[in-house]
Amino acid sequence: MAKIKLAICGYGNLGQSAERGISQFPDLELVAILSRRGRELKTATAVPVYSLDQAASLQGQVDVCLLCSGSARDLPEQGPWLAGYFHTVDAYDTHARMPEYFSSMDNAAKKAGKTAIIAAGWDPGLLSLQRLLAQAILPLGKSETFWGKGISQGHSDAIRRLEGVLDARQYTIPKKPAVEAVLAGRMPQLSAADKHRRDCYVVAQPGTDKAKIAENIKSMPHYFADYETDVTFVSQEELDRDHKGLPHRGQLIHAGRTGDDCRQTIQFQLDLGSNPDFTAQVMLACARAAWRFYQTGQAGARTIFDIPPAWLTGESGEDLIARML
Amino acid sequence: MAKIKLAICGYGNLGQSAERGISQFPDLELVAILSRRGRELKTATAVPVYSLDQAASLQGQVDVCLLCSGSARDLPEQGPWLAGYFHTVDAYDTHARMPEYFSSMDNAAKKAGKTAIIAAGWDPGLLSLQRLLAQAILPLGKSETFWGKGISQGHSDAIRRLEGVLDARQYTIPKKPAVEAVLAGRMPQLSAADKHRRDCYVVAQPGTDKAKIAENIKSMPHYFADYETDVTFVSQEELDRDHKGLPHRGQLIHAGRTGDDCRQTIQFQLDLGSNPDFTAQVMLACARAAWRFYQTGQAGARTIFDIPPAWLTGESGEDLIARML
Repeated sequence: MAKIKLAICGYGNLGQSAERGISQFPDLELVAILSRRGRELKTATAVPVYSLDQAASLQGQVDVCLLCSGSARDLPEQGPWLAGYFHTVDAYDTHARMPEYFSSMDNAAKKAGKTAIIAAGWDPGLLSLQRLLAQAILPLGKSETFWGKGISQGHSDAIRRLEGVLDARQYTIPKKPAVEAVLAGRMPQLSAADKHRRDCYVVAQPGTDKAKIAENIKSMPHYFADYETDVTFVSQEELDRDHKGLPHRGQLIHAGRTGDDCRQTIQFQLDLGSNPDFTAQVMLACARAAWRFYQTGQAGARTIFDIPPAWLTGESGEDLIARML
Repeated sequence: MAKIKLAICGYGNLGQSAERGISQFPDLELVAILSRRGRELKTATAVPVYSLDQAASLQGQVDVCLLCSGSARDLPEQGPWLAGYFHTVDAYDTHARMPEYFSSMDNAAKKAGKTAIIAAGWDPGLLSLQRLLAQAILPLGKSETFWGKGISQGHSDAIRRLEGVLDARQYTIPKKPAVEAVLAGRMPQLSAADKHRRDCYVVAQPGTDKAKIAENIKSMPHYFADYETDVTFVSQEELDRDHKGLPHRGQLIHAGRTGDDCRQTIQFQLDLGSNPDFTAQVMLACARAAWRFYQTGQAGARTIFDIPPAWLTGESGEDLIARML
């Protein structure tokens, strides 16, 4: 059987994870990497590298393009543009703008007769799917998601932009009493600050006022002001040695009821040694589904909610029934 | 919008759970209960009761029939027969005969232009789906499923059939060292006996040789001989008081790897206050999917692997994206 030909667009953490991960998918083949840096780019494998403006010339050579650029600035532009040339899979993660992004990808993909699978990472993505399953099966119930302990890139970046800060890492950490109350089926009303606290490790410029930096972090609106926040100053060496990984953790707890106050609890938990590696694995599995949507003549944007799970595998229905049901 | 009209066939634990559970599904309506006992049957609600031989006369009045009879003897006959009249959902659970059952339901449903969703409980069903997801996303990995602590009806029945036994309950219990080894990512090779042990609570006929009963249990092939098994004799009062619930628990652990030996772990866990209640909830959500397959013109048998998850909900794609992605 012919392999599905993939391109990766964007060669940051996520793109590099996808390049490494593809070896686990025997029916997928990486044929191109697209990057702003073009030929200058040093990649881990010998796959040909193209600059972004060469995308149109790859039509016909690439089946599915994994969009590995950033959600904030790149995807809203690159996504609809590339969906005009290839089937696409992305891990777009700006929750508030999801309907808008879906609609612009849907229009572009439909016009080109392509499939665009959006928001296919772990959250949004796999955890969203678990929320849907839990609520469909136990409607008389309540879901809570806890994230961490894990690195938040957005919060780390926000600290790095402050004056006097050389480098920083921020961990999001669930609060135990909140997790325990949810697990106990008490269905508490929890604010964002009730659920998580924030731990910051910061490298300060020599001679700056550390107390002031800490105050500037803790009072930063949206990012930290509403949360219990701890700031620890460390040397660059300590940061590089102790905080260089990109681990994360996500936990969904759905506490439901049936019959005469009978408790039913669904839990789903991801412990990720590398957040970008795992996101790339979800996207790679979804590349198969993009191809299946195309084969069944369905163009437009899709989410993980629309994918028959069997399409995420390379296996036949018979094998799945015999081996996994 | 018109509600989907349901019938329940079989009024044991599972059928009664479905009757209670349907109130959580505002788009489903129970219109008939089918039972061998027919009009004699006392039900919890005022829904009309029919005897099995009246099934054909309900065509056109029932959209989806939930098959709540036993897998061992009833479903292989009743399933294909009723799939000739209605869309069906069942929780068929004889793993070894799954391909055979799928094929006989597929033939019957296709002939009648109906959809038959099979094996849609928690295992097989929801846990099977989690196995598929985990293996699709982390192919370089290994899944283990642990069941319990929970009542096994089959094992309880096997004990009750022994001479000198008046009543019995059997709990399946995961072995901690096995769970811990899997969670630690050691991917151990585990036999059935390595993973679970069995706890039996038995009411003996007065005057019988309890040591002999215990020996007959522990040596029973397939059911107990290969397992670490404990037998405790109790009075009927104690059994009724302390062991009357039908709780269960299921846990899937998938330990995977990405990149340079980076650990990625997926866990899914169900803590069920009532096993039949939860199974019924899964079946009720799947009734919506059966109806959607029919609406999109797809006849034949399906499993949870084939269902676009959105079809398990009563919600529109737009609402799901805005609210759950």
